[in-house]
Amino acid sequence: MSRVRVHNFSVSLDGFSTGEGQSMDAPFGHAGGRLHDWFFHTKTFRTMHGEEGGDTGVDEAVAGTWGTGVGAEIMGRNKFGPQRGPWADHEWTGWWGPNPPFHTPVFVLTHHPRPSVEMEGGTTFHFLDATPEEALRQAREAAGGLDVRIGGGPSTVRQFLAADLIDHLHVAVVPIILGRGERLWDGLEGLEERFHIESVTTPSGVTHMTFTRP
Amino acid sequence: MSRVRVHNFSVSLDGFSTGEGQSMDAPFGHAGGRLHDWFFHTKTFRTMHGEEGGDTGVDEAVAGTWGTGVGAEIMGRNKFGPQRGPWADHEWTGWWGPNPPFHTPVFVLTHHPRPSVEMEGGTTFHFLDATPEEALRQAREAAGGLDVRIGGGPSTVRQFLAADLIDHLHVAVVPIILGRGERLWDGLEGLEERFHIESVTTPSGVTHMTFTRP
Repeated sequence: MSRVRVHNFSVSLDGFSTGEGQSMDAPFGHAGGRLHDWFFHTKTFRTMHGEEGGDTGVDEAVAGTWGTGVGAEIMGRNKFGPQRGPWADHEWTGWWGPNPPFHTPVFVLTHHPRPSVEMEGGTTFHFLDATPEEALRQAREAAGGLDVRIGGGPSTVRQFLAADLIDHLHVAVVPIILGRGERLWDGLEGLEERFHIESVTTPSGVTHMTFTRP
Repeated sequence: MSRVRVHNFSVSLDGFSTGEGQSMDAPFGHAGGRLHDWFFHTKTFRTMHGEEGGDTGVDEAVAGTWGTGVGAEIMGRNKFGPQRGPWADHEWTGWWGPNPPFHTPVFVLTHHPRPSVEMEGGTTFHFLDATPEEALRQAREAAGGLDVRIGGGPSTVRQFLAADLIDHLHVAVVPIILGRGERLWDGLEGLEERFHIESVTTPSGVTHMTFTRP
């Protein structure tokens, strides 16, 4: 059975995975880049954005597993872009330019479906108004036996965790107090009972935690 | 200048330092012992409670610094006991029996002052209706040049952090999702900017973080 995985998902000490006030210029709102500084330094992130170099230490070792064996991604609409309500701008095709780093089908959850958009490099965005279970069924079909990644944002990851659909969750706990934004852990009391948990702090200061099915 | 320190202060992944529903039988409410399992195993905890043995690894090394050089403690009323409002039971002298593990003056913050209580072993409980600044002034005087420990609970630690009165904060991030209770980090956005932060995960699964003045 293909697994359902979350990778490189940063959360602040006070439990926020994105800040307040998302906009075109601020995908993570007032958090800016603070939740992902550790990730920007990795070779994986650089490569995703067509750049050379990047660190190859433990942060990279953990970050680099994100794409292996993944055949489709599911993301929430707020990961795709800052628009809310009916789509006003159909030209918007995500933050990632003409060749997004996914290279698989990507299912964007939205109450406002629109036609699929085929990008360069193998990424196709499909827009879906569906429950987590139904979205996963379609993503699994598209993944052709490979794993499905839940890409975020926090409310999407939270919904899939609440529905007990996640097999592997990697969070990076970042030592900042964001104060406001969207919380990852709300409504998930006792989540730890369903997983085997490992933690490691790296010299970048973040603590990588993996939640896997026992 | 004597320092103001917080030690062995556990917080769940979702930011709670105590659960919901404190009572005589449940000092940490529905959290039970889950926030402090790592601490119960240490030699420091065992010794505090007159027991033999206990682990002497890294958890102990961190936990064991709690008493060194401390001349007084300040605690919130909810750390002292589960009573709320005017004191109904003056016989109650804390959870710790006749010989509490503090062995110094302890200032209990309460809107309902009552006479001081002298315990065995050097602990005296004083009851104080005061601001953090005024409580600290009195505790410093009583500490005779030694450091002052802020003992908790979460709202007391939070108030002293908000007033920028803490020089050393040790939290142990425990990989559980409590879901409800009292949050440590609320109202402390940007706290990390005032401190040098170090983190280390130990085999018990908790991540010790120290916040010290740069």
